[in-house]
Amino acid sequence: MKDFHQADDIMAGKPFHMKDPGIGSEKIIRRKRDGELDYRPDDLTVEEPLEIRIGRKALATTMRTPGHDEELAAGFLVSEGIVRMRDKIDKFSRPQSEHSENIVIVELGAGIKLKLSSVQRFGTISTSCGICGKNSIAAIRQNFPPIASVQKVRIDIGILLSLPALLQKQQGDFARTGGIHAAGIFDLNGEPKIVREDIGRHNAVDKVIGRAFLDELLPLDRHILLVSGRASFEIMQKALSGGIPIVASVSAPSTLAMNFARESNQTLIGFLRPPSFNIYSHIERVILK
Amino acid sequence: MKDFHQADDIMAGKPFHMKDPGIGSEKIIRRKRDGELDYRPDDLTVEEPLEIRIGRKALATTMRTPGHDEELAAGFLVSEGIVRMRDKIDKFSRPQSEHSENIVIVELGAGIKLKLSSVQRFGTISTSCGICGKNSIAAIRQNFPPIASVQKVRIDIGILLSLPALLQKQQGDFARTGGIHAAGIFDLNGEPKIVREDIGRHNAVDKVIGRAFLDELLPLDRHILLVSGRASFEIMQKALSGGIPIVASVSAPSTLAMNFARESNQTLIGFLRPPSFNIYSHIERVILK
Repeated sequence: MKDFHQADDIMAGKPFHMKDPGIGSEKIIRRKRDGELDYRPDDLTVEEPLEIRIGRKALATTMRTPGHDEELAAGFLVSEGIVRMRDKIDKFSRPQSEHSENIVIVELGAGIKLKLSSVQRFGTISTSCGICGKNSIAAIRQNFPPIASVQKVRIDIGILLSLPALLQKQQGDFARTGGIHAAGIFDLNGEPKIVREDIGRHNAVDKVIGRAFLDELLPLDRHILLVSGRASFEIMQKALSGGIPIVASVSAPSTLAMNFARESNQTLIGFLRPPSFNIYSHIERVILK
Repeated sequence: MKDFHQADDIMAGKPFHMKDPGIGSEKIIRRKRDGELDYRPDDLTVEEPLEIRIGRKALATTMRTPGHDEELAAGFLVSEGIVRMRDKIDKFSRPQSEHSENIVIVELGAGIKLKLSSVQRFGTISTSCGICGKNSIAAIRQNFPPIASVQKVRIDIGILLSLPALLQKQQGDFARTGGIHAAGIFDLNGEPKIVREDIGRHNAVDKVIGRAFLDELLPLDRHILLVSGRASFEIMQKALSGGIPIVASVSAPSTLAMNFARESNQTLIGFLRPPSFNIYSHIERVILK
């Protein structure tokens, strides 16, 4: 048997090496099913903080997987109700400082000002946050309007059942770390439009909404959001900020997610594991035969 | 076939009913494996905000599963480095107001004052947060001292492999919602000491550390923390705040969790799915034969 205690000395001293901004490759010790030990390289999801600034003001810090930082910042601003119009944002930049890869600056258009009183509510966001800096319960609901029922938006059951496999296909190699969440925007034909990954579920959703916002595609009122994990209140609220009428999740929703969906005229599908799924609200958008 | 569109009208109007503070029972529509639809009751994990106050000051809001709120508040204060000594906290209370079940007040001992400058950094915590309100990257590390190596703390591989089943057994009925995380403190003989559940991984860890803190059991320097989900940076930091030398998770760690563990002299075990597991740092605490 190899001397794995010596291996640990190597592990402890070895600098972290990145092949890809989202994946870190590192030597670890694996106990295999047959009980044998193996000292071998393994892929881990990268987790690093991202500070989001508006101009000089630090607005929030989130633990995220690097990549698509501008989209994440844009999606955060939209889903927190801070920015609603595309032309408010001029561009994104990085500071001239240490850790500049972990800071993104949102530069507003000329003459644009945001109400700092509302901005100051936000302390931070986290690995899977979304209700950031709201230091009173009354402030948690962002008061986005419910989905309008004017046009009939409906998804065929066959297309709904095809979405998890399509999302996984889009994820590619990244999924192998086992520590990443994905969010995907699909049209009513099941065509994937935007897929993003992150260690934080909420960040993945912010990234897809941020991309759509930057491309002036909001509201996504004829689209479906699929998330790889659970559906919490924040996921539903972020979807509502993007005008998304149908949200599907591979895992469980919470009570608050369900109640929010019912109030907001959103269709919420959970445990989407073909051939099964649950519908928690507004079944009228699912064509069941 | 029943009229499920009519069922949805019922769903939308039906008030939310709770059997247990942690579980909500609600009628949903289930598509079964054979393609048949069923309109039936289902259990969901309750998600509600909790505002943590110190005296009159709102410190943070977290989306949590009700129950053990005092422990959650105490664990948050400890793991964020705000409170270190048990005698600083006199008691917990609830306000005389609406939503008082979603507000917990930490009352400090006579004459005790906390540095509000550091407290003011904290905006909120979230479903799975822990680095709350730190609006600069430098502020993310809390600077808890690394685990001391003076005493030899080691766990037998057989005991390590028994932990996931023990945690699941302690979880009981609650686990059936599929939307809950668990955190458990075990001694080196595999005896479960404290097990708590929450919709947020970080909240579950705060609850176990808070319980140990309130019982004056910190540091837990001869114990193991097992978490049901992934191991992020915050989980490792919270464990360090409790002096816990060994952290095991059922799923993937992040790069930052691993690097933090290596620096902090913590043993980090991931993908603990008997008979397999990975060791990411400080293998010397695992008795491999």
